[in-house]
Amino acid sequence: MENSSLLSDLKLRYKKIAAALRKNNLDAVLISSNVNLIYTVGELIDGYFYLNSDEKAFLFIRKDTGLSGDNIYNITKPEQIPDILKEVGEYLPESVGLEDDSISYNEWIRLSKLFNKVMPFGTVIRDVRSVKTPYEIECLRMTGKKHGDLYSKIPSLYKKGMTDLELSVEIEHLFRLNGHLGIFRTHGGHLEAFMGTLLAGDNAGTPSPYDFAIGGGGQDKSFPVGLTGRKIEEGETVLVDIAGNFCGYLTDLSRTYPVGKTCYEIEKAYNAAIEIQAITENSKAGVLCSDIWEKSFECAKKYSLEHCFMGLSSKAKFIGHGVGLQMNETPVLTGRYQKPLEDGVCIAIEPKFIIEGVGAVGIENTYLITSKGTEKLTICSDEMVILN
Amino acid sequence: MENSSLLSDLKLRYKKIAAALRKNNLDAVLISSNVNLIYTVGELIDGYFYLNSDEKAFLFIRKDTGLSGDNIYNITKPEQIPDILKEVGEYLPESVGLEDDSISYNEWIRLSKLFNKVMPFGTVIRDVRSVKTPYEIECLRMTGKKHGDLYSKIPSLYKKGMTDLELSVEIEHLFRLNGHLGIFRTHGGHLEAFMGTLLAGDNAGTPSPYDFAIGGGGQDKSFPVGLTGRKIEEGETVLVDIAGNFCGYLTDLSRTYPVGKTCYEIEKAYNAAIEIQAITENSKAGVLCSDIWEKSFECAKKYSLEHCFMGLSSKAKFIGHGVGLQMNETPVLTGRYQKPLEDGVCIAIEPKFIIEGVGAVGIENTYLITSKGTEKLTICSDEMVILN
Repeated sequence: MENSSLLSDLKLRYKKIAAALRKNNLDAVLISSNVNLIYTVGELIDGYFYLNSDEKAFLFIRKDTGLSGDNIYNITKPEQIPDILKEVGEYLPESVGLEDDSISYNEWIRLSKLFNKVMPFGTVIRDVRSVKTPYEIECLRMTGKKHGDLYSKIPSLYKKGMTDLELSVEIEHLFRLNGHLGIFRTHGGHLEAFMGTLLAGDNAGTPSPYDFAIGGGGQDKSFPVGLTGRKIEEGETVLVDIAGNFCGYLTDLSRTYPVGKTCYEIEKAYNAAIEIQAITENSKAGVLCSDIWEKSFECAKKYSLEHCFMGLSSKAKFIGHGVGLQMNETPVLTGRYQKPLEDGVCIAIEPKFIIEGVGAVGIENTYLITSKGTEKLTICSDEMVILN
Repeated sequence: MENSSLLSDLKLRYKKIAAALRKNNLDAVLISSNVNLIYTVGELIDGYFYLNSDEKAFLFIRKDTGLSGDNIYNITKPEQIPDILKEVGEYLPESVGLEDDSISYNEWIRLSKLFNKVMPFGTVIRDVRSVKTPYEIECLRMTGKKHGDLYSKIPSLYKKGMTDLELSVEIEHLFRLNGHLGIFRTHGGHLEAFMGTLLAGDNAGTPSPYDFAIGGGGQDKSFPVGLTGRKIEEGETVLVDIAGNFCGYLTDLSRTYPVGKTCYEIEKAYNAAIEIQAITENSKAGVLCSDIWEKSFECAKKYSLEHCFMGLSSKAKFIGHGVGLQMNETPVLTGRYQKPLEDGVCIAIEPKFIIEGVGAVGIENTYLITSKGTEKLTICSDEMVILN
């Protein structure tokens, strides 16, 4: 993708944000969180991005990394921003939106003193970001393709007698060697992950304090999620849920690998997961997120698997979520989220079951939703592959 | 370390926090950020930790992960907290401290409605956390020892013709296989890293928007720090700065590896770095942080290396920083930080130079500061090893 296509895409993003500003009776927005800076600048900077409701953008840079262009100013502190706006003849905004959901209280207080009136705008930007632009869709397509290619190599990394840690480390190695950036960005300050999770056997049923579909006990109580270092045993399943990230955009992809052999219970749960996945695959823009959740739950019930659907003692109450620069974007496919899927959202769908004594069984793919239907971005066979 | 020693250590932490509450005329603190939850609970939970100024602790858990003990209550939302406190006969606090520096504005507003009066308390907890407890010191000693052991194996991973990515991925693989948790926690929402950085040749001089001592261009503009994928050439240096994290506590350790051969310039800068490191090594509790910075800068000047000390076009203005559950804890060893080193702080000291056409040359170790002197925690030879 060329720089010129990024530039025109950024203009489109400004158009969307400016429309949201006008809708919320705001004159401008000031952005300082890393993820929204990447969204609005096209790269991470140390500084602030300012956009007024007429789509005019300014960049205030604290640490010069060589970025050049119009309306870029070096500052040492945000308190200089209003003065610079005045100096260059830009009108001073009456009311400015700030990222209430992603900057600290401290930062909010500091930035609120720069303007006459500030208002929460974080949720609005999240909603703007949930509908992807053409450039973002290309980034997600590239990521999903690469992600899928790498997943097809996972079975070849398995060796009998491995621990869950040893298998995960080989996968991480493969991914990193092929350009995975490693970083796993999330919204809200509480969700954390190291590239993703790998869950073998009953560890999949261990609840984690993190809001993932399925948790796992983890290696240490300071980071209680995912693998535990236990040996992978025949008859168990391994569920690999390691994110794709090659240019800042994340795709989400999980596959189930029965170890040594499969069985009726695994096959049944996998068929249910595939059928639940098809509910979304056969949807399109306009379908209610809550409807997809309800239909998914009904399908789990049809298979008499509702007791182990999305967890055992601790159950996730969603079947999917938006992805993009962060892993937990909007929309959320849950009963409480009664909004329609918009044309251009990217969502990961992850129907997962936990079979006691066996492990997690399920699937996850990332889709682009359009008015015509769905496009699978994580290009990888949905078939279950046995590890030998 | 046994669980009983963690429990008595947690009581000590409560004593310290309660003393800070009384000093700040606060009745209680409510904690919800991941890092401060790990600090106060001893493990990550999904919920809230409440401590009053009489050292009485309560835990409000949103997602049950099997934690048991006194004063633990399950909740679905924080609004239940005041009612539960009343029900169990606990007095309702007049003024409560919240983590202004680490929770979002949104979260602050929501929690502020639970109490009569809320006050910023985040910086105070950071200062409390900067002086480590006995259990924490044991965690850091174990981490530093393991970290150092793994670093001694780095030269054996190098093969001629490797890219910086290939070498980094082998180091990550080694670290992960030996129990590294992967996660790199930071304070403030802006600093991000994937395990750390590896900088080869001139890439070390590329400025990064992140506030690291030395940056590097990175693999992608969405994550502009560290390696670029370029081949490592003879005559360059490789600076490896990958964190240690085996139980939630981070140690910081960097070593310089000249590729194929060394030269006068590398040796000179390395000697300067060792001499600067000795300024801290020969310090003890009571020495001003700003004094260490100034003496370090003077030493760089003595070697006529101030032009490339802590960066080239973009220079870090610190020589070291506190470490613990996060990589950028207090104290900061910089000119503006005119506080004395306290007995029990853990700091990383990282004198680094950048030689054009060669790369970064420097060293970094993590130390415990006591009233008697310093204890090196990252047990690893300070000698420069040539990669062949």
